[in-house]
Amino acid sequence: MATATATRPVMLACEEPLPVPVGRPDSNGLAERPLPDVEITNPERSRSLKQQALAHVTPYQALPVQGPLVEPRLTASYPVLEPDEDRDERIQTVIEEYKATLVERTRLHMGYPYNLDFDYGPLESLQKFCINNLGDPFIESNYGVHSREFEIGVLHWFARLWEIDQGEYWGYITNCGTEGNLHGILVGRENLPDGILYASSESHYSVFKAARMYRMDSVQVKTLASGEMDYDHFKQEVTRNARRPAIVNVNVGTTVKGAVDDLDHILRVLQEAGYTEDRFYIHCDGALFGLMIPFVRRAPLVTFRKPIGSISVSGHKFIGAPVPCGVVITRQRYITALSQDVEYLNSKDATIMGSRNGHAPIYMWYTLTRKGYGGMRKDVERCLRNAHLLKTMLEQAGITAMLNPLSSTVVFERPKDAGFIRKWQLACEGPIAHVVVMPNITIDKLDEFMAALIQSRAQCAAEAAHQLAREARLQAAHDLEEEERLNGGLGGPWQ
Amino acid sequence: MATATATRPVMLACEEPLPVPVGRPDSNGLAERPLPDVEITNPERSRSLKQQALAHVTPYQALPVQGPLVEPRLTASYPVLEPDEDRDERIQTVIEEYKATLVERTRLHMGYPYNLDFDYGPLESLQKFCINNLGDPFIESNYGVHSREFEIGVLHWFARLWEIDQGEYWGYITNCGTEGNLHGILVGRENLPDGILYASSESHYSVFKAARMYRMDSVQVKTLASGEMDYDHFKQEVTRNARRPAIVNVNVGTTVKGAVDDLDHILRVLQEAGYTEDRFYIHCDGALFGLMIPFVRRAPLVTFRKPIGSISVSGHKFIGAPVPCGVVITRQRYITALSQDVEYLNSKDATIMGSRNGHAPIYMWYTLTRKGYGGMRKDVERCLRNAHLLKTMLEQAGITAMLNPLSSTVVFERPKDAGFIRKWQLACEGPIAHVVVMPNITIDKLDEFMAALIQSRAQCAAEAAHQLAREARLQAAHDLEEEERLNGGLGGPWQ
Repeated sequence: MATATATRPVMLACEEPLPVPVGRPDSNGLAERPLPDVEITNPERSRSLKQQALAHVTPYQALPVQGPLVEPRLTASYPVLEPDEDRDERIQTVIEEYKATLVERTRLHMGYPYNLDFDYGPLESLQKFCINNLGDPFIESNYGVHSREFEIGVLHWFARLWEIDQGEYWGYITNCGTEGNLHGILVGRENLPDGILYASSESHYSVFKAARMYRMDSVQVKTLASGEMDYDHFKQEVTRNARRPAIVNVNVGTTVKGAVDDLDHILRVLQEAGYTEDRFYIHCDGALFGLMIPFVRRAPLVTFRKPIGSISVSGHKFIGAPVPCGVVITRQRYITALSQDVEYLNSKDATIMGSRNGHAPIYMWYTLTRKGYGGMRKDVERCLRNAHLLKTMLEQAGITAMLNPLSSTVVFERPKDAGFIRKWQLACEGPIAHVVVMPNITIDKLDEFMAALIQSRAQCAAEAAHQLAREARLQAAHDLEEEERLNGGLGGPWQ
Repeated sequence: MATATATRPVMLACEEPLPVPVGRPDSNGLAERPLPDVEITNPERSRSLKQQALAHVTPYQALPVQGPLVEPRLTASYPVLEPDEDRDERIQTVIEEYKATLVERTRLHMGYPYNLDFDYGPLESLQKFCINNLGDPFIESNYGVHSREFEIGVLHWFARLWEIDQGEYWGYITNCGTEGNLHGILVGRENLPDGILYASSESHYSVFKAARMYRMDSVQVKTLASGEMDYDHFKQEVTRNARRPAIVNVNVGTTVKGAVDDLDHILRVLQEAGYTEDRFYIHCDGALFGLMIPFVRRAPLVTFRKPIGSISVSGHKFIGAPVPCGVVITRQRYITALSQDVEYLNSKDATIMGSRNGHAPIYMWYTLTRKGYGGMRKDVERCLRNAHLLKTMLEQAGITAMLNPLSSTVVFERPKDAGFIRKWQLACEGPIAHVVVMPNITIDKLDEFMAALIQSRAQCAAEAAHQLAREARLQAAHDLEEEERLNGGLGGPWQ
């Protein structure tokens, strides 16, 4: 007998296996999924936005969500209005309202790798100044309102962390992890103009964005179930293209699963495929984990003592800051190569941006000075411990979960309730969600989160059960009607 | 008689003619000038830095200066030290010292187009939050601690200013003017992949940086003495390359001279050279003046009613903000074209950066809401009036000066004293310096500046005169000695 549920399947939470490779339409079946609705702020744009949404969207930029909590905003919530007599009162109301929202949103955040636990109170008065470290941090600028002293202090700290001498490195404080990747890959391309970019398909989307921007040929290397690069596939590809140099993006913690590509393995593959050191360039994307891994015992070392070209990391992630920021460090000699054609550029600025946020270095300087290596190590240890706790809690609640051994990113089944995802600000990709355990994610918060998750799942399951019953009831009524019709109006045994 | 001064010329301040085209070694003789020393922070780097300094450096990134006030810093002034018992006290001392420097540097700043007169007091408590507008501003993100409401309000304000309907445009708040140029030119290239980039040689250096990053063919169009594009040369070049599309950077205020390229003239040239609208893309770099020109009477309108592709502007310049920021606005249909290949990118993020500073939109929103169109207009008028005043003051003091009619950038002879340049933070390029009259440059400040400039010039002239006398005296002594030698020791009439 065909029931209504056969055409309207209610999927149970555990139905989808974990871990699955993500981000590839061929492997996670995203192409077949219904597309999520986008929240629009402008009615005229809705059509084109929906057309554009015909694509899989990664969580680290803007994940369209669907559900009862998303109310379409037809205009900007806070338009810029012309001044009138209520101006100051209106501004104050908006700011107060907004601040209340920020407090609530900051409290319930779980999904993004941002350490929201910071206190830059002593720096608040610096907001009065337009601090701009325009250009190269190592070259003095005529614009005096800068913070190069702090920037260079922070860069030296990272140089020491990643084991490169002060005279050997060049770097700067970026606006975000993406800028670090854009810079590292550009340095690679400028030094190996004919190089092919290799990156695993679970790399941050900015890596392939760079390849497109820079008109580079690129190869998406397959991944293992853990999210790590598939080294056999990598070997196959670099061997096949051995006549051209290789520019390799190595993930020190992938975006979604926190997987760490094995640098030593990659170097071995390159060597076996006949690449000498002048024919490859390695950029390490350490957005989150580049700053944690030096403090993890038994972790493979990412260091400039190995033949790598650059490392980038975010500052607002593990360190925590009000503004997005990051660090990129490369070898001085690569920048020299980059600067040869200065006449064409009419510039000696090897950064991507010209004007650069001068507050960011001070935030980083402040936290690093307060915590030191010892404090950072403690933070890393606590995060890894709490990540392990979360994974155990999830498993005990019957929720499939995964945690890479070197990571604090706990991956689990995507909750059914879009409202729950939104409330807890989980980053999702296809069938999976993750929580990144940062220093602000305490045991108490994990406790609160688990209680809410279990309740949300119970509610979804109850609704699904109720829906099944409702449909079965309708089907029964329909069958009865059919039977009555066939039996010429006589009551049957099903009623 | 050969004097010592013939081999050691003392150039007088007015010796160098103005205006001169800048940034081109062939026309301003920069190639022959002695290279300025760079200030170094690291002794090991000095050699390579000096080698790199074999190029002309534009003032908008990092201008090496030379002179008694530049003391080489051998290490970072504020290294990150490991915590000890003095930690908090040390941090406090550093911050207090630094704040005092900032106050002084902010007070004496004249050269960069930054409005340092702002008061974001009511927003100070927002520094507690990690506000990040990651990705497309029009697509909701799961990360809840954002300020898209403010961002979209600000974008709508700019869309209205530049006359494009809400349903027709796309844009975002950038990190700086450079990001706006990088974005506009990328949109142009993605829509016209075979296009050649045309930009005048006085364009901001980020324009040619973009061409290099994006592997685009580019043409440096010559400039007129005012700094404006040489339209004849432009016509010649677009005619010569007519089989390939044109991507044109139009300067709405050049970096050094504040010259405005004539958009209508450029459009006419393109039309005459046979380019239909689908075969060119115009990006308007309005870093400073893009926000001023709409309020200037008689100024040529830069508007989306004309067939332009994008406009970018800085937020920390005319509006003023603690952090660098900017706005880029383009046509929605160009972004749709950009997003077609999303599967390759695995992303729907059409911004250059992924994570984006969420405080910047609130600063801009706050100032625009407080000032409104009327307030902005008043600021513009005051700046133009004060710029005119400064030019007149300079000329009355016998200092050659130039002011483009639509600009508040006053160009004049570069002062001889490097210490003076540094103290007043003048932006210089080759033989010229400029002051950009921003809303914080009051009449009183101009008065103070002129007094100091005149005094500095007098001192330089006095030193030069003294040097002449000293050398003449030496020469005379030498001549006497010669004569005595020839006359066999007899005294001559010169003594």
